[in-house]
Amino acid sequence: MNTDDSLTELRDVLRAFAAERQWEVFHTPKNLAMALSGEAGEVIEHFQWLTAEQSAALPDDTREAVALELADVLLYLVRLADVLEIDLAGAARRKLEINARRYPVEAARGRADKYDRL
Amino acid sequence: MNTDDSLTELRDVLRAFAAERQWEVFHTPKNLAMALSGEAGEVIEHFQWLTAEQSAALPDDTREAVALELADVLLYLVRLADVLEIDLAGAARRKLEINARRYPVEAARGRADKYDRL
Amino acid sequence: MNTDDSLTELRDVLRAFAAERQWEVFHTPKNLAMALSGEAGEVIEHFQWLTAEQSAALPDDTREAVALELADVLLYLVRLADVLEIDLAGAARRKLEINARRYPVEAARGRADKYDRL
Amino acid sequence: MNTDDSLTELRDVLRAFAAERQWEVFHTPKNLAMALSGEAGEVIEHFQWLTAEQSAALPDDTREAVALELADVLLYLVRLADVLEIDLAGAARRKLEINARRYPVEAARGRADKYDRL
Repeated sequence: MNTDDSLTELRDVLRAFAAERQWEVFHTPKNLAMALSGEAGEVIEHFQWLTAEQSAALPDDTREAVALELADVLLYLVRLADVLEIDLAGAARRKLEINARRYPVEAARGRADKYDRL
Repeated sequence: MNTDDSLTELRDVLRAFAAERQWEVFHTPKNLAMALSGEAGEVIEHFQWLTAEQSAALPDDTREAVALELADVLLYLVRLADVLEIDLAGAARRKLEINARRYPVEAARGRADKYDRL
Repeated sequence: MNTDDSLTELRDVLRAFAAERQWEVFHTPKNLAMALSGEAGEVIEHFQWLTAEQSAALPDDTREAVALELADVLLYLVRLADVLEIDLAGAARRKLEINARRYPVEAARGRADKYDRL
Repeated sequence: MNTDDSLTELRDVLRAFAAERQWEVFHTPKNLAMALSGEAGEVIEHFQWLTAEQSAALPDDTREAVALELADVLLYLVRLADVLEIDLAGAARRKLEINARRYPVEAARGRADKYDRL
């Protein structure tokens, strides 16, 4: 069975990575929130001049560059949750339940006008 | 065994959630990159006036609010990777290998001066 | 003569505003950079589900909401430049000169493919 | 008299710059909102690992790099307001009036706890 996509394992790898390098002092929640936002900004820079259609048909080299930017976002996100002692997967489940109640299938179908969450 | 923290399962849940609501039309990579960035901005707003110390000792209600914002970032990140057909966990592994080479333990220990990635 | 659009006057107004409220302690460059990013995130949230065409034809109430978000970005930007003792208008002139050299009219006409700056 | 810090003049320069290069097609509000957010992300990356004290004492080369990033934010902000036909200086004045009412001097003095705007 594949456990390579586990958020918990990723958290543990990142925790060890930071500890080995004595980077915990830099990894305050405030600093990590900034790093997360900076990486999200790098993602957006790949898409800002593209049409919606172009954004869905990236050349291979751009797609790999974007993949590594998305990885950066994930790494900081997991690390930020860890230093805040937040169970990220659990928070995602809670948020999905909220979203399911907020956007019932019948009411939300095909509408973005009242839509402001995933 | 806990599989609740699987990125692949989360991807599948979000894919179904969007399909049921016929939201795929809104979920272009360009739009999802914007949503990701917007959510990262909401995370940062929680921390902008806090000291590093305050950011590490959030009151419970703020911490839960932040947890749900981090969940939003994760949901959009996973959805964005999905529509781009990027294996997010695989990209994270590739990025970790790059980081391990870029920041060898001895050279990187306790230094942020040359440090610009996780 | 209209001097209401002066960046220098705006800087002075904001400086006095912060001083009267004893907010200088919160207005570190780090915190203001976060606030700037957070406000840019609020701008983006207005546009994330819109098509390019919709983004150019906002309803009046949305347009006024966006105007106030753009104002927030400007206020934090001017304040951040001030605490860093950066002449924002001068920096803009330097950057325009750089851009004019980087994107000569003939080479840049109608092309976004190599285009990554204003 | 110095008019070099006029937002209106800057708007006109940028409008001509885009027109000469036939870039109007790329300058949709949606795209410019993304560019604004991307540049704000570049600003934040300069500060993310710094303490508040370090952020207030940048080395000269970093400070000039930050100055040019702030210029980028300003250029996209002014251009975005222009394509939306928003009077940026007027919006800033409206926002300042709102803030003055929201944060009366006596109540706001030295407090960030209820403070969420400039």
